[in-house]
Parts: sequence; structure tokens; C-alpha cells
Amino acid sequence: MRKVKNIIPEVVVRRLPRYFRLLSELEREGKDRISSSVISKRLNITASQVRQDFSHFGAFGLQGYGYDVNFLKEEIKNILGLDKEYNVVIIGAGNIGKALANYKKFNNQGINITAVFDIQTKNIELPNGLEVSHIDTFSDFAKNNKVDIAVITTQGEAVEDLAKTIKECSIPAIWNFSHFYIQSDEKTAVENINLNESMFTLIYLLNNLENK
Amino acid sequence: MRKVKNIIPEVVVRRLPRYFRLLSELEREGKDRISSSVISKRLNITASQVRQDFSHFGAFGLQGYGYDVNFLKEEIKNILGLDKEYNVVIIGAGNIGKALANYKKFNNQGINITAVFDIQTKNIELPNGLEVSHIDTFSDFAKNNKVDIAVITTQGEAVEDLAKTIKECSIPAIWNFSHFYIQSDEKTAVENINLNESMFTLIYLLNNLENK
Repeated sequence: MRKVKNIIPEVVVRRLPRYFRLLSELEREGKDRISSSVISKRLNITASQVRQDFSHFGAFGLQGYGYDVNFLKEEIKNILGLDKEYNVVIIGAGNIGKALANYKKFNNQGINITAVFDIQTKNIELPNGLEVSHIDTFSDFAKNNKVDIAVITTQGEAVEDLAKTIKECSIPAIWNFSHFYIQSDEKTAVENINLNESMFTLIYLLNNLENK
Repeated sequence: MRKVKNIIPEVVVRRLPRYFRLLSELEREGKDRISSSVISKRLNITASQVRQDFSHFGAFGLQGYGYDVNFLKEEIKNILGLDKEYNVVIIGAGNIGKALANYKKFNNQGINITAVFDIQTKNIELPNGLEVSHIDTFSDFAKNNKVDIAVITTQGEAVEDLAKTIKECSIPAIWNFSHFYIQSDEKTAVENINLNESMFTLIYLLNNLENK
């Protein structure tokens, strides 16, 4: 396989999961091949965008044949890194923490939630026999277990220290749902999901609809 | 005030809520003015990016003085549309729906959650005296009440029909947490938050860290 590291623009990477999901569906439906125009219709992405996206990792459709569903799916799976397993810990067992711990789609993709931490450890129902551990035990856990991704679902000022601790524990990825913006660096990948920012952006878009 | 409609790039709009939050904090701290370099440090955005962002809506800092905190805050508040009130309904009373219904920060910004719908209406605890209504009553509610934003937190195939119903009810904005990608159009603003896409992107970034 061609080396693909670091050559795919992030905006394209963000569309790959949608292609991956569609290709998995098509495979279950028994389809062997697919045209860019069908992908376009099912994902609301223009066909030329689809072809351009796929060309980034050397996948070219054949005129009148289209793309090989299984090959394309495996290619995208490898590019995303979904051919491996990931251990994930969730910090904060509130509603968002619980929602993520219960998120069934992750299990099928090698994404294993191995621990949940909070300042309160009682009366919280979690799936798969998971229990809530006290946040004070987090550092020790991270040092003694392989943790690939730490999910922050807590709020407030403690998040800044928490981010520092996660980086000190050499956990290479943070999925951050707090208000505090965490910067990625050479050793830490970060995805910030800020609900306020998203809601406020939606309100801006709503107020600027063309035909309002 | 200058007309600012449709001239601010979306990437800048997405940073405005962070500026707004910082400026609100600074106001509470009693600060009258602020330099781009201090904003830069507190938000992890370069000072030149800050100055460029603000210039989009005609806010220019004075050399040696900086920006007027209150003026800038009010300006951003108006641009985002946070000077008005918004009625929000949540569809789906699972963990994500509950998390959003409990999200206290919204209340202070004129974002009022006025109803929650689900196929099950029993045994779900919600704040502010909210009760869960049956999803079958959603259309009627939307026709008889002003709804500005519909939040979709359900999953599965019904989401496509739900999106259609929301658009038919002329609700002008959708905040979509489902796997189904909803396209914005002339009459409907849409923010899609897809947790799978975000997690898979994080995994890609993790696998492509430079110093890994």
C-alpha cells in the first residue's frame, strides 16, 4: 500500500468516517461496487468532491465500473487507523460521560472504554460492568494501563489542570467536551467539542439565513 | 452600527463565542480594556489572528490602549444574535437529550428549552419543571408555538423523516446530534455534531502525530 501519512487535508479526513459508514452499509447490502454519483446522493456531497476526496489516497474509480466497495472500505479503515484497538477513559460521569459510555457504535470499531472517573463514585449506572473510579486514582491508572484517549466531560476551572495531568501521563489523545479550549501539540492530538460554540454558531447562521 | 450581515467568514464566526466568553469574564473581573496579546494568551490564538478576526466587524484596537471590553462584548453579542431570545425543543430524552436540557449555561443567554419529546414519556427527570411529551404531539406543538431551534438527539432511520417534519414546520434551525447528516438550505440553518466523525478524526490525528 502507498504511504499516506500526513498528506490528506484535515477537511477530507473529517469526511472519511461518513464514507466509511456508507461503505460498511453497502457491504452489508451485498454491493460489490459503487459509483461516485450514488455516493454523492446518499451522503449529500457532490460527485466531483467525492472523486477528489478519494484521489487523495490514490483511489480512482473506473469509468462505467465505479469503486470497489470492499477495497475502498478497507483503505479508509486503514487510513483512519480503525484496524487497531484503542483504550479510552472517560473523565466525568455526568450526562455526557454516561452518554459516551453507553455509545454502542464505538464497541464495534475497536474503541474500548476501560475506565470512568469522577469525584463522586456512587449511584451511577454504567454499561458493560464498568464502575466509576475516584478521580484521585486517575494518574496511577494511566501510568499502569495503556490509555490511548482521555475524554473530558467535566466543566469548570479544574479542566486546565486535568489537561496538564493527561499530557504528563503521556496519553496521546484528548477528546474534550469542556469549555476550556485545549491546544494540540506534537505529542497530543486534541478534538475540542464545544457545545456553546456550536449553539452560538447555529444562532448566527439562523439569523443570517438568506430567505429569512 | 455598521451592517455586518454575511460578511464574516464562518471560521471566524466559530471563534466569536470564545471571544464572547472571555470578554464576559473580563467584564466580571472589572477590566475596561484588553490588548490582543492578552486575548491571545488566554485563548491560545495568535495575536495577529485576534486582530484580523476583530477587523472583520470593524473593531480596531488602539496602539497602547487595546480594545474596549464592554464595546467589543456587546458588538460580538449583537453579531451572534445573542441580544434576542430563542425557543428550543429537544427531540430525544436519552443521555444526550438530558445533558442538553440540564445545560445551565444556555439559560443565561436567552436560550430557553421549551419542550422535550420522546417516544417514551415516563420516568425521565428534567430540570425547570420540564416534562417529556410524546413525539406524536411534536408537529402540533411546533405549529402552535414559536420554535426557533429543534435539537435532534435520537438515532436510527427515523431521523430522516424527523428532519423533513422539522423543515415542514418551518423551524429555521436544527442542531443535529444523530448519525444522519442533515443539509442546511435557504430556510434552515443546520449544525451537525457527529460524535463518530469526531472520534474517528481524533484517532487519525493520534496515529499521525509527528513525534509519536
